[in-house]
Amino acid sequence: MGIQIVRFKKNNETNWGVVSNNQIKVLEDNYSTLAELLDNGEEEARRIADDVNASTVSFEEVTLLSPITKPARIICQGANYSTHREESGMEANRPPFNLIFSKADSSLCGAEDNILCPPNVKLLDYEIELGLVIGREISNAVEATDENLGEFLAGLVIGNDVSARDVQLVEGQWLKGKSYRTFCPVGPYFYLLDKEEIPAIHDLELDLWVNDELRQSANTSQLLFKPAETITELSQIMDLSKGDLILSGTTGGVAMKLTPEILKMVSNPTLSVEEKTNALLESQSENDSYLKDGDIVRARIKSKDGKIDLGELKNAVRRELPVTSILG
Amino acid sequence: MGIQIVRFKKNNETNWGVVSNNQIKVLEDNYSTLAELLDNGEEEARRIADDVNASTVSFEEVTLLSPITKPARIICQGANYSTHREESGMEANRPPFNLIFSKADSSLCGAEDNILCPPNVKLLDYEIELGLVIGREISNAVEATDENLGEFLAGLVIGNDVSARDVQLVEGQWLKGKSYRTFCPVGPYFYLLDKEEIPAIHDLELDLWVNDELRQSANTSQLLFKPAETITELSQIMDLSKGDLILSGTTGGVAMKLTPEILKMVSNPTLSVEEKTNALLESQSENDSYLKDGDIVRARIKSKDGKIDLGELKNAVRRELPVTSILG
Repeated sequence: MGIQIVRFKKNNETNWGVVSNNQIKVLEDNYSTLAELLDNGEEEARRIADDVNASTVSFEEVTLLSPITKPARIICQGANYSTHREESGMEANRPPFNLIFSKADSSLCGAEDNILCPPNVKLLDYEIELGLVIGREISNAVEATDENLGEFLAGLVIGNDVSARDVQLVEGQWLKGKSYRTFCPVGPYFYLLDKEEIPAIHDLELDLWVNDELRQSANTSQLLFKPAETITELSQIMDLSKGDLILSGTTGGVAMKLTPEILKMVSNPTLSVEEKTNALLESQSENDSYLKDGDIVRARIKSKDGKIDLGELKNAVRRELPVTSILG
Repeated sequence: MGIQIVRFKKNNETNWGVVSNNQIKVLEDNYSTLAELLDNGEEEARRIADDVNASTVSFEEVTLLSPITKPARIICQGANYSTHREESGMEANRPPFNLIFSKADSSLCGAEDNILCPPNVKLLDYEIELGLVIGREISNAVEATDENLGEFLAGLVIGNDVSARDVQLVEGQWLKGKSYRTFCPVGPYFYLLDKEEIPAIHDLELDLWVNDELRQSANTSQLLFKPAETITELSQIMDLSKGDLILSGTTGGVAMKLTPEILKMVSNPTLSVEEKTNALLESQSENDSYLKDGDIVRARIKSKDGKIDLGELKNAVRRELPVTSILG
């Protein structure tokens, strides 16, 4: 069986632990990165999972940190569920290419951290995603298949690909609008996969709530570009390292709702930035689903039988005041 | 005065050196990353630059490596010279936002390495860019100005933002089409700036040749979004670390020539991938400027008086054969 690993801070010390009976069994050795943990701590983690004498701390005593550590590549798949394609104004069907972009690793934050919305951002959105954690150095083209996927994948994590839709869509390249600090909450657990659990990653349930209202609900069986083919393609382009994160895309139910006409307008390079911004804001003006100060976003991913459980990611939204308002 | 630093391999050993009289003075200590060199080797580098007894190797004996080491963030400014905006089908004027995207760090290669064109890529293009190397950890919003820029900037490097136009434009997000391995030749030198040279970075001459034909020629005075304001804005979004690279954008003269109509077509999300690809390829079918197997791309950046000289980046293009052709 896989195990649930957390990275946490207690009394200003950072440690790794294994979740067991709602307690955290603390690893004796320390590891500065997830890659180091995978290199040298996996055995201990698996051992103390079964060790009744391991020293424990409670969740109340600690602050959970992102189990994905920096530096890390965060490679994202865009528009990878039909329901999300449709609500974004796109053709629902699987497109001829796997849309790839990235987020800055400084957007990573922990499972209980606040999502900080910069003052310039008007349309703050959420995106639950299954995060695939790379388990080995990939520095040339490989052929990943459902059969050998366990060679490339160390584990799973819940990710929220928080997005400033106005920045993302009007500027066209998505890096900036998806990279603000705290725009990538992950966790609470790094779920270290057992090789025999690999087939189950195609049948995980994803659910996201805003203030207890269910907004996104899907199954990873609906992914258009699957993990194995995505790793195969990425390996033909770029290197991936142990501990890097692939966010596999989000499903329908995000705040943003675009008609094909609006998507066409905001993508039109012959319109001015002002025209695009106005068209986008106007189209979303009656839309009450975007994140507001104080909102609570909760995300869960698990298998139907509960054997694989990535925990619950729970982040409050804080809208940062513009400097002028702070100053009065 | 600033100094020209190289990273090189000789007999399978990697070292750093300082260029002096067309020789390489070898640093005694070794540093696994550029950040380490900046932390611990800068003093030695400056000292041996003036040391006539330093041990030397010739350029003929070594293979030059990318002075930017992995892991590194490669943050790029798009469409940041008016001449390049115009040839790309855009408004020539400075737009209301600084267009930001990224390249994978595995695209880095050295100043004499081959640019490998994957078999699927049809429109291979070059982009000379002034590379700004970050000199300190930036983990919150800073106010960079022309006066304090030396606090944030360690040095300069020539970069070639090699681009697969068909992948880049048809898929819309640029990461993939700009991140293939070898798509970011940098060097030959890491030019370690003296603080008093900072003003000169606004008046550097950029020239790029393909097979001795001058294709791009410009001055960094023409940059639309300047280094200081770019660092200020990036610091409001994401962390930057010592040794990270900002590629400041390319100037007119790349192979790609797009009319506003074609740019609008390839950006139109309601057209199919096939329609976009056909429109793009058709529009470039008479264009003989794209890189071909065997082409030599040379790039130089220096001040008019030659006091700042980033050397010459010289890369041959090799078109990789599809697997089927290799197999016969």
